[in-house]
Order: sequence, then C-alpha cells, then structure tokens
Amino acid sequence: MAIRHIQPGEVVAVRPLGSALNDTKPLTLFKTEHVEVVRMVMPAGKGITEHKAPGEIIVQCIEGRIAFTALGKTDELEAGELLYLAAKEPHSVKCIEDASFLLTILLNR
Amino acid sequence: MAIRHIQPGEVVAVRPLGSALNDTKPLTLFKTEHVEVVRMVMPAGKGITEHKAPGEIIVQCIEGRIAFTALGKTDELEAGELLYLAAKEPHSVKCIEDASFLLTILLNR
Repeated sequence: MAIRHIQPGEVVAVRPLGSALNDTKPLTLFKTEHVEVVRMVMPAGKGITEHKAPGEIIVQCIEGRIAFTALGKTDELEAGELLYLAAKEPHSVKCIEDASFLLTILLNR
Repeated sequence: MAIRHIQPGEVVAVRPLGSALNDTKPLTLFKTEHVEVVRMVMPAGKGITEHKAPGEIIVQCIEGRIAFTALGKTDELEAGELLYLAAKEPHSVKCIEDASFLLTILLNR
C-alpha cells in the first residue's frame, strides 16, 4: 500500500523515534508544487555523499547527531538545531549517532 | 542593534525556551527570496486573528500548545507536531499554553 502524505491542515507528529528509529524508514510527510518535507531516518555511520538540491534546503535535527558538510566546513547538528543552505549548494551528511531529521526542500525557483 | 539573521550553513537552536519563554520575542531566523522561517513565541491566551499568507506555510510546535483554525476546523498542535496549509488559506491561531513554534512561510509563487 502506498504511504499516504498528510493533507493540508492535517496534524502529524515529528517527535524523536527513540527505540523505533531502527525500524522506521524515511518518510515524505508531504510534497506540493513548491515544497517537500521529509522525515529522514539514518543509523550511525550512514550518510549521503555530496550532492546538490534544486532549491534551498532546511535541515532540522530531531534526535541523535549528524555531521553536515557544506561551504568548506563541517558542523554537527544535534536535536533541536537547524540550518539552511542556498539552492544548488553542494553538501553531504554523515550520521554520528542514530538520527532522525526533518529535511525541507524548496522545489521551484 | 538589529538582530542578525542566520547565514547559510549556520547552526541555530530551536529548542523549547522553557522559563525563558516569557522574556523571549518572536525571531525571524532567516529570510531569503523564497522562504522565511520565524520562531514564534506566544503566551497562553494570545493569538493571531484570521489572516492569509501569500504562500504555503508550515507550522511546527516546539513547546506548549496552540489551537490552529483553518479549513473549517480547529486542531490542537502540541510539541513535536506540525501541519501545513496551502497558499492564501485563511487561518487563525490561539495559544492554549505558553508556546513557541516554527513558522515557515513560502514567499514566491
């Protein structure tokens, strides 16, 4: 069964997954013509090699810890911290502790 | 002194404010041509009367509890919950408990 995206006005929880993290897959919460919001789930040691997004991105760590590399530096994001990046800026992610994070991608320029 | 917005790649905390909530003002974390992200801070009993945003909005409750009215219904948002709304959709907010929440507003259509 296809996973249903949330609809406008529908409330969804984006809390820490805790012990359920390792059994949870990344999930696109919703996607419109203009923006996509994904709850990323990533175990320690995994990552995403350098890539670019078509629009600006916002990364908000929900739990755990990730190393985020862009603009010639690496910053660690812990629960409750966020950053944004301009469109087409190369970046990579490496998970330091089992983590979940919200990824907001602007789609139209 | 003007409050400085965060720059691309800069990490900012968006954790619960706790006892500092009542001494904290709403803060625009950053604003680009395409998107604005604001940490809203609102004491219980306060609210925002019905209005429309030019683009889609995402509301994510960080702490406390807010009542969000749109599309003919009212939903309560607690810490760790979010919703989105289409552009130009009338909506209003009423704060049930002292709350902070992230408001993401898409600016260009």
